[in-house]
Amino acid sequence: MAANVPEPSRLLSVQSHVVSGYVGNRSATFPLQLLGWDVDVINTVQFSNHTGYGRWKGLRFDDSHISSLFQGLEENGLLKQSRMLSGYMPSPSVVQAVLEAVERIREVNPELIYLCDPVMGDMGRGMYVDKEVLPVYRSMLRYTTIITPNQFEAQILADEEITSIPSLLSVLQSLHTQGANHVLITSVSLSDTDILKIGATPSSEPSMVLVGSSRPSTDTPLKPWFIQFPEVRGYFSGVGDLFAAMTLGRFQNLTAQDVEAETSVTPIARAAELAVAVVQAVLAKTQKSMDALEQEVTEGSSGDDAQARVDRMRGRELKIIQSKREIENPEVAYQAKFFKETSG
Amino acid sequence: MAANVPEPSRLLSVQSHVVSGYVGNRSATFPLQLLGWDVDVINTVQFSNHTGYGRWKGLRFDDSHISSLFQGLEENGLLKQSRMLSGYMPSPSVVQAVLEAVERIREVNPELIYLCDPVMGDMGRGMYVDKEVLPVYRSMLRYTTIITPNQFEAQILADEEITSIPSLLSVLQSLHTQGANHVLITSVSLSDTDILKIGATPSSEPSMVLVGSSRPSTDTPLKPWFIQFPEVRGYFSGVGDLFAAMTLGRFQNLTAQDVEAETSVTPIARAAELAVAVVQAVLAKTQKSMDALEQEVTEGSSGDDAQARVDRMRGRELKIIQSKREIENPEVAYQAKFFKETSG
Repeated sequence: MAANVPEPSRLLSVQSHVVSGYVGNRSATFPLQLLGWDVDVINTVQFSNHTGYGRWKGLRFDDSHISSLFQGLEENGLLKQSRMLSGYMPSPSVVQAVLEAVERIREVNPELIYLCDPVMGDMGRGMYVDKEVLPVYRSMLRYTTIITPNQFEAQILADEEITSIPSLLSVLQSLHTQGANHVLITSVSLSDTDILKIGATPSSEPSMVLVGSSRPSTDTPLKPWFIQFPEVRGYFSGVGDLFAAMTLGRFQNLTAQDVEAETSVTPIARAAELAVAVVQAVLAKTQKSMDALEQEVTEGSSGDDAQARVDRMRGRELKIIQSKREIENPEVAYQAKFFKETSG
Repeated sequence: MAANVPEPSRLLSVQSHVVSGYVGNRSATFPLQLLGWDVDVINTVQFSNHTGYGRWKGLRFDDSHISSLFQGLEENGLLKQSRMLSGYMPSPSVVQAVLEAVERIREVNPELIYLCDPVMGDMGRGMYVDKEVLPVYRSMLRYTTIITPNQFEAQILADEEITSIPSLLSVLQSLHTQGANHVLITSVSLSDTDILKIGATPSSEPSMVLVGSSRPSTDTPLKPWFIQFPEVRGYFSGVGDLFAAMTLGRFQNLTAQDVEAETSVTPIARAAELAVAVVQAVLAKTQKSMDALEQEVTEGSSGDDAQARVDRMRGRELKIIQSKREIENPEVAYQAKFFKETSG
């Protein structure tokens, strides 16, 4: 076994672990394994359940533990993954440790495909991790193949608000300039006028617009694309983790059927279409079981608010295990389209 | 959601975690998830790779971390698993913490099916964990539905050597008397005479005899059974973990096809037949890839003994991910048979 040859089916995922429920590595690993990936799993925390329950126990691991795991892999010549995924990391020093590991894996394998999901906050809650992670994530961008921020994270990485098509393009361009080959902003809020301009459909129902672009090879302008899909009502945890995992798992790893068919606008857009299809299928299954459960919760209400919150969270755990077939064979209902207009 | 109703498809697995490779929870979780189990996963260690590599990094978790995870689950009403599996635990105090958790889960669910794999040692190496775990595992027996010791572990739990059919029966009986409903001794070494007496076939090729029995309901004698199957040459890690997981995952959880067919001598024997079939399929796939790899290792030999050991271990990692179909649909080639004679 040549020591420096990357293993084509090996993927490293660095995220949180919960004993019960599906966020972080628990949301990413099984679906990636179903697609045939030998997933190496570094857990950045071990909690009983995700923090949305309000009550949880467990440990956040520090950078010395995480670094030692990378060191153990390196000493054994096991840092030969062809792909890498990172999600929630509990401190700036852990993000820094992962950054150093990405540098080393890239030395072994310059072709490493690294997807960085820069988990920092969202539009509703703002920043929910230590703000010191921001400069570390900015440094990470130069090693990043695919970045999957939400609108809030894209804005703070680019240090610019998205209020229009020109500012959206400017944010995409900034992330490319900082180093990301492919940018997927997982949810962008646009005015009805701008929705029409890019070629999407204004709707009275809540809908999500995912926007993506790849770094142009020369001085040609960006060719952004979008996928519009209906928002599944309710709050779910682990959705972004599942989307990121499925995007990385499917990128340039398409079925023969995909290649034969005239698929999508770009390879990364095709991966995103498949990932959206998986997420939508899992959410549909989750919501169905949730509706049945919330009925029960209401009927059996104990008047204990904390327990009611727990029961609600429990019902909203993604039905990942039950969606095996949909993960293996997603049906794409929402397709990527290039922006119709890119001028404001 | 009634707080005390166990969830029929939920299974808790308490074992080790390695970042890369397939032992402990890494060997058990994906196969159980493929069978549809919502697996709650408590990791007792986080190592870069298994210790057989000679070099590894990481942490063994202490009983306070493991107990806090159980506490977090309990506070949220999440200790409602219908099944539980335990494997390697890094210290007697962790085994004690798990014992206390099993007691609490049994209070919620007296029907809990708990498989205890009492990882302590083997015939080749003797005891390889702190000997203080032995009394704790003995206390665990009264909560145990299924126990899967190897010959060494069965002998020390029963405090009797297996040298004949009567001593084998005496060991089985001792484990039942101490509390285990079903005993599976995963490998028993018998003389050719005894092999013939139980109804197995002496062979010049190395073969394994797995022996099982269920606690008789009254004073009726034990009806032990065996499965004889060829030994796959070479040393593999995580095989026992895979066997235990598949036995628990399939027990009383058979397909409609199984129920229609006149299957096996007892339900636990049927589960063991299916588990053996999975293990044999995974080992066959592993050995095929290993043979190819060892060829390469020999050719590219660097003269570094430590690295050669690592390369050998790497090649012997179970091909679990690649055996998805065989795990879902195992073909039983080796069937359980009742002992022909139970007298010495």
